[in-house]
Amino acid sequence: MELLNHLNWRYATKRYNTTKKISEEAIEQIKTAIQLAPSSYGLQLFEVLHIKDIALREQLKAVGYNQPQITEASDLFVFCHYADAHSSKIDDYLALKAKIQGSAVEDLAEYGTMMKGAIDALSMEEKQIWMAKQVYIALSNGLMACASLGIDSSPMEGFDKAAFDKLLKLEDQGLKSTVILAMGYRSAEDDTQHQAKVRKPLEKLFKTV
Amino acid sequence: MELLNHLNWRYATKRYNTTKKISEEAIEQIKTAIQLAPSSYGLQLFEVLHIKDIALREQLKAVGYNQPQITEASDLFVFCHYADAHSSKIDDYLALKAKIQGSAVEDLAEYGTMMKGAIDALSMEEKQIWMAKQVYIALSNGLMACASLGIDSSPMEGFDKAAFDKLLKLEDQGLKSTVILAMGYRSAEDDTQHQAKVRKPLEKLFKTV
Repeated sequence: MELLNHLNWRYATKRYNTTKKISEEAIEQIKTAIQLAPSSYGLQLFEVLHIKDIALREQLKAVGYNQPQITEASDLFVFCHYADAHSSKIDDYLALKAKIQGSAVEDLAEYGTMMKGAIDALSMEEKQIWMAKQVYIALSNGLMACASLGIDSSPMEGFDKAAFDKLLKLEDQGLKSTVILAMGYRSAEDDTQHQAKVRKPLEKLFKTV
Repeated sequence: MELLNHLNWRYATKRYNTTKKISEEAIEQIKTAIQLAPSSYGLQLFEVLHIKDIALREQLKAVGYNQPQITEASDLFVFCHYADAHSSKIDDYLALKAKIQGSAVEDLAEYGTMMKGAIDALSMEEKQIWMAKQVYIALSNGLMACASLGIDSSPMEGFDKAAFDKLLKLEDQGLKSTVILAMGYRSAEDDTQHQAKVRKPLEKLFKTV
């Protein structure tokens, strides 16, 4: 399976070749893989910021434990989940579903009420955790899209979320930063590319019941 | 890109053909894709239960909102994160890393202390949320492995976690159920396969800054 070759090839890149840029076409394909990620109820309660502003990337690096990937990678995505799972977001989804599937939005009212009821039963913190988890599925799709295009990537959780939210003015946009994806082409000087991948053996990771 | 075709082909399958089983070889490939998923620090603080016991699957279905996939799918994985990120788990990882990469475990002591310090700074709840998020990356790898093998799949969050934990005796094993993956071959009678995929347009999902 080609996918396993891609997964074996990829690694959490530490240093990027700053002169090699990802093509527009490849970025579009990575975005599409992220778009196609499944999410709970299909709601996609997240957005992704593509940070092109170099000065801003320098500022983000300063609150991202100075990790070089933040500025050296060709492209940087900041995944953000919604600050709240407002019922208006569910309505947006229902309108989109009706449009794409050619149904009447009124016919989805009962389904909408069911979803809103389930979501309203959660505390604000539970909603945020639930939304953040969905983002990790999309992150993984992005990682795999990169690998299958021969593009290196670094999923990153180690950053000051409050500082990112402030620099990116996320509160005004009703968003909260979740996780980062840096993408580009590995530097020949990144020693980590030569390290053997460390994974638990299948018989320790899986148990048959 | 082949991956996008696979992602477009897949959908959250509701009804499975109960007579069609996934081959052993394909299961091994799906497991390997899950094994290769990246995780925070590479720690893989989770295990996956492959539920083959039919009577147990019936019991799980009863506490899984009676969703038919739980018993009708060819195979069922229950992803579980550790109940705690014990320092012994970090030591297990360091021992594995030393073995695979041919280094002395003593040379990793400083790295271990750094990881343990970061993890110990989290509350028990924060640790569990953090571990659960990593599981979603592995889940996504499983979904993509299925799709690239022409195997249908259903990621499922809708189940009574406490009841699953009890039925699967997870407390004794230091585990907590996170998310389920049902896999198999779609039934011709599953109407959802004919529904157009609902996804936000790229220009709503992504913002350039």
